[in-house]
Amino acid sequence: MPRWTNNAEKRLRNAAAELFEAHGYEAVTVTAIAERAGLTRRTFFRYFPDKREVLFPQTDEIGEAVAQAINIQPKDADAGVLVGEIITVLVRAGTVITSDRQAQRKRQTLIQSSPELRERSRTKLATTAATIESALTTRGEPDAQIIAAVAVDLLRTAYQATLEGDDNASFAEHVKRARTALRSFDSYSRLPAPVSDP
Amino acid sequence: MPRWTNNAEKRLRNAAAELFEAHGYEAVTVTAIAERAGLTRRTFFRYFPDKREVLFPQTDEIGEAVAQAINIQPKDADAGVLVGEIITVLVRAGTVITSDRQAQRKRQTLIQSSPELRERSRTKLATTAATIESALTTRGEPDAQIIAAVAVDLLRTAYQATLEGDDNASFAEHVKRARTALRSFDSYSRLPAPVSDP
Repeated sequence: MPRWTNNAEKRLRNAAAELFEAHGYEAVTVTAIAERAGLTRRTFFRYFPDKREVLFPQTDEIGEAVAQAINIQPKDADAGVLVGEIITVLVRAGTVITSDRQAQRKRQTLIQSSPELRERSRTKLATTAATIESALTTRGEPDAQIIAAVAVDLLRTAYQATLEGDDNASFAEHVKRARTALRSFDSYSRLPAPVSDP
Repeated sequence: MPRWTNNAEKRLRNAAAELFEAHGYEAVTVTAIAERAGLTRRTFFRYFPDKREVLFPQTDEIGEAVAQAINIQPKDADAGVLVGEIITVLVRAGTVITSDRQAQRKRQTLIQSSPELRERSRTKLATTAATIESALTTRGEPDAQIIAAVAVDLLRTAYQATLEGDDNASFAEHVKRARTALRSFDSYSRLPAPVSDP
């Protein structure tokens, strides 16, 4: 039964991807997706709350996986260690997700084609950031909000760069590159200090 | 005429703030806002495309001010200099916006009370990031996306911290603190390297 269950979800996602590609996101109904997958509308709604959600299968899991990695760290782990764990989980997830670049490129094109999909994408990433922030706050990390926000930026930036880059660099390499770019925020402290006198 | 024009916009915003506080965001109509301001619905829609927008008066301007600051930098300015300029503009804008903490706290409570306002807030910040990213990309900055995303995170984090903090620290101090927290993303490179072997 669980096997069939997972299979149903996958069939629905594949059917949706094929129909979206053929007809565009707006024109495809949940009924059409279910029919193509050989399932019912009722089954569709057992797996996805709405049509949009079929395009965001893993996003919630990423936030939860990161939160879990934070929770199991020793109590005295500092922000550097926690960030290291966060990045490790993000790189693992991003590497799996971007392993099929062609499918992900189609997904990205679809999301960009629809305001409601762009909105859902932003909401999903905001939820991921909130999940990570909550796990960090529970540990008493004072910089929970900015760390969680930047972690999700790294995920999003590396995801897009992996799909759009023409050099076949890996997801992990794009994360590393984006992390290095963060240094420019710190180097600013060497300039005269307009921050203290705006 | 321009003086009267600006005054109308301000009257509409004040009327909206008062009505939202008294009755909640959902219950207040554009007609009611216009009436309270002594103006017509038509005048309202000359300044704001919809009811939500009345709560986001400055957001677009911030992105444009940052883009302008980037555009006027010398061609050989490196990422550190550009980031310095971005932070300077953000601190200036954030300091002005948070000068009336009580009004901004009410605004934040309202935004959190409504899914459609939370959505608009995310869209606004995404637009700000896109404006900054575009200005950086035009200069050939390869890390435009992550720099723009993190700049907007600094704005949002410092804004919330300034309103929620009980120590009366300034917006500039909160930006500085959040920038310092970014170091933990770099310190991770001193750990064993799981990034290259996810």
